[in-house]
Parts: sequence; C-alpha cells; structure tokens
Amino acid sequence: MNFAVTQDYIDWLKEAIEDQNDEAILQSMQGEYPADINTVLYQVTADEAKYVMRLLDKKIVAQIISELETDVRKKFLEKAYKPEELAELLDFIDTDDAADILNEQSVKYKEETIAHIQDEQHATNILELLRYDEDCAGGYMQKEMVKANVNWTVQECIEEIRRQAEEVEKVYSVYVVNNQDKLLGRIALKKLILTKPQVPIAHIYEKDLVAVESYMPIQEVAELMQRYDLDAVPVINVQGKLLGRITIDDIVDAITEQAETDLQAISGISEDTDYEDTAWQGARARLPWLIIGMAGGMLAAMVMGLFEAELTIIPAMAFFTPLIAATGGNVGIQSATVMVQNIEELAIGGILKKVTKVLLIALLNGIVIAGLVFLFVLLMGRPAKLGIVVSVALFSVVILASLMGTLVPVLLHKFGINPAFASGPFITTANDLLGITVYFSVARLILDF
Amino acid sequence: MNFAVTQDYIDWLKEAIEDQNDEAILQSMQGEYPADINTVLYQVTADEAKYVMRLLDKKIVAQIISELETDVRKKFLEKAYKPEELAELLDFIDTDDAADILNEQSVKYKEETIAHIQDEQHATNILELLRYDEDCAGGYMQKEMVKANVNWTVQECIEEIRRQAEEVEKVYSVYVVNNQDKLLGRIALKKLILTKPQVPIAHIYEKDLVAVESYMPIQEVAELMQRYDLDAVPVINVQGKLLGRITIDDIVDAITEQAETDLQAISGISEDTDYEDTAWQGARARLPWLIIGMAGGMLAAMVMGLFEAELTIIPAMAFFTPLIAATGGNVGIQSATVMVQNIEELAIGGILKKVTKVLLIALLNGIVIAGLVFLFVLLMGRPAKLGIVVSVALFSVVILASLMGTLVPVLLHKFGINPAFASGPFITTANDLLGITVYFSVARLILDF
Repeated sequence: MNFAVTQDYIDWLKEAIEDQNDEAILQSMQGEYPADINTVLYQVTADEAKYVMRLLDKKIVAQIISELETDVRKKFLEKAYKPEELAELLDFIDTDDAADILNEQSVKYKEETIAHIQDEQHATNILELLRYDEDCAGGYMQKEMVKANVNWTVQECIEEIRRQAEEVEKVYSVYVVNNQDKLLGRIALKKLILTKPQVPIAHIYEKDLVAVESYMPIQEVAELMQRYDLDAVPVINVQGKLLGRITIDDIVDAITEQAETDLQAISGISEDTDYEDTAWQGARARLPWLIIGMAGGMLAAMVMGLFEAELTIIPAMAFFTPLIAATGGNVGIQSATVMVQNIEELAIGGILKKVTKVLLIALLNGIVIAGLVFLFVLLMGRPAKLGIVVSVALFSVVILASLMGTLVPVLLHKFGINPAFASGPFITTANDLLGITVYFSVARLILDF
Repeated sequence: MNFAVTQDYIDWLKEAIEDQNDEAILQSMQGEYPADINTVLYQVTADEAKYVMRLLDKKIVAQIISELETDVRKKFLEKAYKPEELAELLDFIDTDDAADILNEQSVKYKEETIAHIQDEQHATNILELLRYDEDCAGGYMQKEMVKANVNWTVQECIEEIRRQAEEVEKVYSVYVVNNQDKLLGRIALKKLILTKPQVPIAHIYEKDLVAVESYMPIQEVAELMQRYDLDAVPVINVQGKLLGRITIDDIVDAITEQAETDLQAISGISEDTDYEDTAWQGARARLPWLIIGMAGGMLAAMVMGLFEAELTIIPAMAFFTPLIAATGGNVGIQSATVMVQNIEELAIGGILKKVTKVLLIALLNGIVIAGLVFLFVLLMGRPAKLGIVVSVALFSVVILASLMGTLVPVLLHKFGINPAFASGPFITTANDLLGITVYFSVARLILDF
C-alpha cells in the first residue's frame, strides 16, 4: 500500500522499458511486495512485463508468478519462459502453487518443465500433487510442512524446523507422526518455544486434532477451518498417513472464489470474466443465459398467443403481465437466496418445517401484495373483476414462486450442483413463465369468456 | 466432525435435560469442540441450552458464547446470565469478542457487566475497544498480542510469550515497539525459535511490515491481508502507536459476511435472515423489495395504458412485453455483476475504456438476440413489421440495460453504497420499465399508428 500505482508511473515505466533504463526500473521497484509489482505488470503489455521480470531477482519473480491470475498466467508463461527457465523458478515456489501453475500448461510444456527441475524431492512432491482433483483437499495442499517423529525431543523438533526454515515459509505447528508416517497429533509452535529442549515430544503433543482426508471437497475443508478457527489443517490418506497441509491463506482464496462463482451463477454469467477478456469472450460468457431468458420470453409469447381473443376484448389485461412476471421472479430469487445461504444447516431438522415457514412468509407477503394491486387496478379506473383476477393471480404466483425457490436449491444441492444457480436466470425465467400462465388461466376462469 | 448431530441425539438430549440426567449429558459432550456443541444448542430451546451450559466448564461456555450467532446471542444472554455471571465468563473471552458481545446488549446490562469484570486490565482493554466503529479495523482488533521492547533480547521475548501464553491463544509474531509503544517491526515466531537466547532482538526484527490504522474499513483490511497473505496484521493509531492486532480468522468471517450481504443485496432481502426468524420477520425482510418491484410493475401497467388503442388494434404486441422486460433485467444484472466484481480494479485505467468494451459486448449480444427474435416472430406467423419492432426494441434495450448495469455500480460505489445493490431488484425493475417504454415507443414510430 506504500506503492501508489498511478497512471503516471505506468507511463514512466513504459518509457523506461523502451529506453532500456534498467537501473531506474529496478530502483523504482526496490523493496516492493510482489503483489504490488503484479498490479503494475497487469497494466503493461506481456512483452513489457517479461522485460521487467528479467531484471528482477528470481525469488521475487517466482512470487510474482505464484500470484498471477490463472488466465493471465496460462497465456503468459509459455510465451515468456522456456521449460528450463520455468523449472528454475519453480524451485522457489511452494509445491501447491507449482502444481497449480503446471496444471494450467500444455502437456508438452508441463512435462519438459518437470524434467528440468533440479531438486529431485521438490519434483517428486509436485508430481504427487498433480494427481489430485483441483477442487478437493489434495488439490489445495502443499508438501511444505514440519513433521516430527513421536520419539524425538523438543530439541530435535527445533533442529528439524531449522533444517526446513528456508522451505516452509509459515510454521504454525509441527505435525507428530509415528515410524509409518501416520499422523498422531500436533505441537503448536508456541508450546515448542516454551518447553525445555530435552523434553520428549511424546509428553507434550496434542492428540486431539482436526485432519482432513485428501478427497474432501475444498468447500467442506473451508467450513471446517472456519468452524474451528484453524490456521492450517493436515491432510491424510485413508490409512491416516500424513500427506501435506492446507494453510488458511489458500482457504481465504477458495472462499472468495466461491463467493464470486455464486454471484456469477445468480447473475447468469457462465464463465469467469474480467476486463482482461476480449469483447467477444465477454459476449460469449453472457449469451447462453440470455438465450435461456429469451426462450422463456418466447414461450411466454406463445402462451399469451393462446389468449389472443381475450386480449382483443380486454386489452387492459396485458398491462399487468410485466407486474406478474416480475413479482414471480423476485419472490423466487429471494426464497432461493435464503435457501442457498442456509443449505448446510438443512441436514438437521428436516425440510418440512422449513417449507411450512416459507409458505407462511409467502402467505403474508402474498396477501399484502395482492391487496395493494387490487387497489391499484381500481385506481386505474379498471373494473373490479379485473382487479380480482390480477390479485388472485399475483397471490398464486407468490406462493408458487416461493415453493420453487425453496425446493429447487435443495434438489440442485442433492445432485451436487451449485445451489446458487437456483437464484439465476433459469429459475427466474421459469417463474416468469409460470406467472403468466397462472394469470391467464385465472382470467379465463373468473372472467369466463 | 467427529460429533454427529442427529435428530436422535437431540431427542435424547431433550429427554436427558428433562430428567436432569446431568452426568449423561456431560459425558455425551466430553471433549467435543465448542463449535460442535453450539450446533446442538441451536436445536434446543433457550431454557434447555441454558441448562446444558450451566453444567459445562466455564472456559467451554465462554467459547460457546463467543461463537454464537449475533442475533441468537443478543436475545439469549440477558435472559440467561446475570451481569456478574457474564462478567466472569468474559474473563475467558478475547477482548475483541468480549467487546462485540457487550455492544449487542442493552446499555444497562452492558455497564453492569463491565463493572463486574475482575481483571482490571481486561476491563480497560474491552472499554477501549468499545469505542471503535464496528466496521473498521479498530472494531475487529484484539488487545491480545505479544509485544516486545526493541531493547530486549530473544530470551526476554520468550519470557514475555510465557507470561502471555494463557491469554494470547495464537502467536504468529512478536511485535517490536520502542519505549513510547511505537510499532517498529515484527519477529516471526519461527525466527525466535531459531535464534540464540542472548541475541538482542534489535538485530533480528523485520522493519518492513504491513500495519493498518484503526479507522481503515474492514473490507480494505481484508483485501490487504489477502493480498500479502498475512496471518495477522498490527493495528496502529495515527501516531504509529501499536494498539492491537487483527487475526486472519476474524477476516475470514468478515469476507464470508460480505459475500452474504452481496448475495442478499442482489436478491432483494433487506435484513439478515435465517431460519431462526419468525415468519413475520422473514416476510418483513422481503416485503420492501417486493413492493419496489411491484411499483415498477404498476408503472409499466400505466405506460402500457397509454398505448391501449394500439393494443386493441394489434393485441399480438402484448405477447412480447415479458420477453423485452426479462431481457432488459437479465442484461442489467449481468453487467452490474461483472462491474461489482471488478470495481476495485477500476481506480486505474479510467472508466471510458471499460464502457467501450461493455458497449461492444452489448452490440454483439444485441445483434444475435435481435436476429433470433425476428425469426421467432415470423415463425409465430406474425407480420414482419411486428418482427422489426420487437427486434429494434430488444436491441435498444440490451444496449441501454448494459449501460445502466455498468454505470450504476460505479455511482453507488462513489457514494459509499454497496455496489452489489445495482444487481438487485431496484435496477432490475428500472430495466423492466425502460424496456417496455422503449418497446412501445419504437412500435409507435415504426408501425405509425
């Protein structure tokens, strides 16, 4: 935050790159955090970014690459670095990030890069991580951690930390394992500092700890770490063998990503989009949902087509179609969102109680809204009978849309689909359509044409 | 996760409470995490929860209270605990949580509780924290941290950690201050463990650290900690004096909360709602937005009323109003969501470039959609002239709604309002209305009635 990225600085930097004024460039970035340098590099061309990165220390470049956005990195790396150059940088990158980076690349570039990694242990670790699904605990874990044998003393533990100090950036606890590498417990760093060096760790380690299996979905890992306020969680296999750990900073990223995905699901954007994309990519990401919405609108037009005769007699009936459709959509989104936010708590208590509550809320809102709309129709100088039709239809739509909004997320969740989609255009469109069908059906019943 | 909360267990627990079978209750909760006990307590009545909590160890109860949901806690505490009882529990609760808990209570209960806190330092710390706004760094910080004078040695640092070991649960670093308590830097715990006891800390501390001032909005603190992968960040006042620290677990909560607020803003739910609420609360939270949506629908009805003569001649015109309105709404939500997710990056680069891109996307999508709808109108056997009206209107609506969706979040953000509201019912309603007005205006122009 000390580093103000102004348009002036960007302009200056572009000029300095053109003039090959290496010293001035280096000096301007002296002591800045890689995350801040990244902000700058997003504002220049790939070639300019490459030029700057060649000037910087390899350790800094490694961090810059770790923190690049996935889409940008995917396009940038293969163009900017030969496999042997990337391999050299990977030595400075944690195994989890290294695996993510390699997973994004083409198979050939990936394989060649791995073959060039000098540190064999590091290469083996990365290869192991490449095996895991990216959305589960294994896909998020890193091999960097401090592991101690249960037969060691505190002194031996500290020696191990010293040995790993370079490699493991953040040490929260030391994980205690037996001779077969089975996870037995942990010792907080604080405890280690306060215990005499000759004490056997078997006397001081905590046996009660939360660990996750490598195939646990990352969202569950996130909830668990939040629930128990954990800084890091060890990952084990089915036999209880310690495989790695997941640190809270990766979980924060996962939570933020999930929130973005939910927002996009609700608003009907089908891929990750940002302002780096071309207009065509942006259009393509939005088109599928727009077309679904259009299909709904077309169906609505066809439904209304069935009532053309009635519309010719009372054109005023058409006035209230947007109102009915919009209310159905709004109620559905509201119910679905509340449901999505509480879907994890649903396991206990049974769904019937929730549905009853939702129906009660819909009933209350339906009465208020139907009453308001009846008054409005009268105020517009239309016949009371039309008012009754609109009110009854609106009331029914509120009830039906509430039910849809409540049940669809539960169904989606059951089938392993992100329930946030239930607040999205698909269900909104369905509710629109439902509303119009109900409206005209009620009209035919009450106005008996 | 070891603790399976089944309906059976809840039923058993309720019976055990009735039978005052204290020993069995205690045994069933033996060694469970407070977070898990909380899950159980949410499923029983307040009186039953109180009964169970009186059986448990005070330290566990303190943690249970810290982790209760705000709304539940607000109602529960004053009924279940006398001020002197709560004061006793607060001794086991970190200052930040203690301040949050007290802030929720009535003034009288709060003051009486503070007066009963035995540990004077703890009381002073809590009182200090009560002063800060709840949405800024000061409102999230805790006084629990380890602070070392720059003139100390590593040994003295470790002694200080020992002294504070009980009070400070998680130690990531030791903060280094001068005699005036001004923050100078920090030492990671790992470094402390690896350095000889007699070394002066002046030789080993990191001078370059990220700190935040107490009035920084918590969302900025969250971004900063995410950006630099921090586990904890020290909070200072304008003079640079060290006031406290914010740990990552509180930030995770803040991020999660923000995501929920965004979702609720988009879906038009005005207050925090969950299934603990009564139906009436649920209805009230949803009603304001529904009524705004209705007002939009009523305005649409009035706009369409102006075209009653035209509708009598061509009732088929009405068929396409839901399609036009829905597309306007969908396009607006999409644009607004992309904007909300990128609003922080907007500072650099200027808005004009983004608007051009958005317009280009809208142009592409508008052409595709208008073409599709033209074909559809012909397929429905309607005159080509009506097809032209619908297509032209739809195209204009896509462009206008994109512009609205792009500019409104920027405006909201400028005025300090959560830009996520731009994806909510208010703008959707405005876009609906806009769509219908455009549609009928285009119709009047082209069909020249």
